[in-house]
Amino acid sequence: MKLEDLAGQCGEWLRGSGPESDIVISSRIRLARNLAEFPFIRKCTDQDRAQIERVLHEHIQRVDEWKNLSYVDVATLEDVDRQFLVERQLISREHSEAEGARSVAIDPHEKFSLMVNEEDHLRIQVMQSGLDLQSAWAQIDHIDNLIEEQVTYAFHERWGYLTACPTNVGTGMRVSVMLHLPALVITRQIEKVFRSLHKIGLAVRGLYGEGSQAMGDFYQISNQITLGRSEQQLIAQISDVVPVLIDYERRAREFLVRESQKDLHDRVSRAYGILCTAQTISSEETMHLLSSVRMGINLGLIRDLEIPTLNKLFIHTQPAHLQKLRGVELDTANRNIERANYLQRHLRKRDAGTDPEKN
Amino acid sequence: MKLEDLAGQCGEWLRGSGPESDIVISSRIRLARNLAEFPFIRKCTDQDRAQIERVLHEHIQRVDEWKNLSYVDVATLEDVDRQFLVERQLISREHSEAEGARSVAIDPHEKFSLMVNEEDHLRIQVMQSGLDLQSAWAQIDHIDNLIEEQVTYAFHERWGYLTACPTNVGTGMRVSVMLHLPALVITRQIEKVFRSLHKIGLAVRGLYGEGSQAMGDFYQISNQITLGRSEQQLIAQISDVVPVLIDYERRAREFLVRESQKDLHDRVSRAYGILCTAQTISSEETMHLLSSVRMGINLGLIRDLEIPTLNKLFIHTQPAHLQKLRGVELDTANRNIERANYLQRHLRKRDAGTDPEKN
Repeated sequence: MKLEDLAGQCGEWLRGSGPESDIVISSRIRLARNLAEFPFIRKCTDQDRAQIERVLHEHIQRVDEWKNLSYVDVATLEDVDRQFLVERQLISREHSEAEGARSVAIDPHEKFSLMVNEEDHLRIQVMQSGLDLQSAWAQIDHIDNLIEEQVTYAFHERWGYLTACPTNVGTGMRVSVMLHLPALVITRQIEKVFRSLHKIGLAVRGLYGEGSQAMGDFYQISNQITLGRSEQQLIAQISDVVPVLIDYERRAREFLVRESQKDLHDRVSRAYGILCTAQTISSEETMHLLSSVRMGINLGLIRDLEIPTLNKLFIHTQPAHLQKLRGVELDTANRNIERANYLQRHLRKRDAGTDPEKN
Repeated sequence: MKLEDLAGQCGEWLRGSGPESDIVISSRIRLARNLAEFPFIRKCTDQDRAQIERVLHEHIQRVDEWKNLSYVDVATLEDVDRQFLVERQLISREHSEAEGARSVAIDPHEKFSLMVNEEDHLRIQVMQSGLDLQSAWAQIDHIDNLIEEQVTYAFHERWGYLTACPTNVGTGMRVSVMLHLPALVITRQIEKVFRSLHKIGLAVRGLYGEGSQAMGDFYQISNQITLGRSEQQLIAQISDVVPVLIDYERRAREFLVRESQKDLHDRVSRAYGILCTAQTISSEETMHLLSSVRMGINLGLIRDLEIPTLNKLFIHTQPAHLQKLRGVELDTANRNIERANYLQRHLRKRDAGTDPEKN
């Protein structure tokens, strides 16, 4: 599989299906694992890293059901290709920016990826469209077992899995759910919600993980603590809180429909209009406008667009995706023009789109 | 003729034809006249005003070629109807807001109007589409003669026509040209241009005369001084300066096309997009966006709209016009919704409109 083939397709977390998919984009679990026989990455020599990479590659290749996995050498990739994998959430930004031997194995349906030599020797990540942590857990547990049959993980009887960063010691697990919360942003309740989440030990991040800005009203909620909790406890904590957030967002949307239906429709409709007619547009503005349109679709204000199409636009208008799809490198100004052209090609043919009868 | 009939039609200054009509909306001349036998308006009793109104009405009715003029009693009009006549530039804002007996006679083609008991007993106004002051002058001189054949104007051999305000003494004439100068606004040259105009004794006003804000990048240039100049000198002064302004605006447009074609196209195209999709929109924003679209049509960036259609939208989206066209009174919030609906009905059917091939 080439990265170009990936660009055109729609990975698991973009499917826009699954439970509560009007608000929950995806459910994600990742496990941090290290091989007992090697030092942690930051103590590794170049030879160690190359050795770890070789060992894990061999083990992954030996798994029968993984015959069609793509094994990508991240170290030798072009910048635009690394950025492409980050946009697609198949590798982390840290993995993209690190140095030395490192790679990623990618499931052809993009349901999971295995990062080798990120912060830990192995990071297993499973993504599921909508709110479905139990499926994600079943899958990642299975993947983890397939590897553990072949290798000895660094594990301590009392502390659990040992990881490079102490915050991951224990289960080595991070459970996260990506939510689309535009109505909480519009009604200015989002900060209050986030403060509450921090109090119960949950972290809030933007679309592209740690340190990334929340663009397009997308937020990732995840556990911060792993030590002293079981996997099921960590999943339960997120599973318990997400329905509350969904409920808040739904109430905020109902409030907007009830109290300012016309302004809401105006916001959604103009966003669609600008996306259809801009001749140059930044990634940030695109995300912001697509967010309004996404909410508009979910509220029935826009009827001729579907969520999977929109989810695809979110990712395909990212800088590296635009360049992969076009097949050329583009500077910022030309990306902004290409982005506008791309949006026009995919939205214009659908006519003006909002329903003029709906007031 | 009812005002409702006027609402649907397109008056002279909205035709969008005539010389230089991409930049010059209209040419206008008005004459201030007073009847020798009555005191100036501000010294008039109610009876005097009523008497002046009766006398002038009778004289106007006696003119054979004016049989089809509409004679409108401004004093008894509803607020919305007075506002409607102001928006159409058939009466001044002062005339609309004054008290006591007053009226206006309106040519069915809206080429001229005769205001009775505005600041002076009679104000004759002639409007011509595009830059055509000589036609306007020929017409207003003829109208002035038709009335002077029947009445004795207040006239002083040395000072000329006597008027309520000393600034109008002499010819009683104001010559004005309405210009659309969006590129001078975008390139921030407009203030400099205005300072130069002030230095040579010309006034710059917005769309609706004295004190009105310049909306939609429309500016009226007119003479401030009338005493000591002949009618032809006043016309010459404006006629000499307008081609210079047209040239400045053309150069500014060429500069924008050359230096920032993409940003210009973006501005024009987004303006069109918002006008097509807004669900509620203020008069001010509408003017602002229509101004960009108007320039876009003139630069060939929008091809499926024509200037007369656009000129009509400028006037039909004004508050009183919206209400007259809809046949009901509307508060601001509902006018903003009706305005958006009106724009959609008149723009949407034309599809998205800008040319995606044109980069």
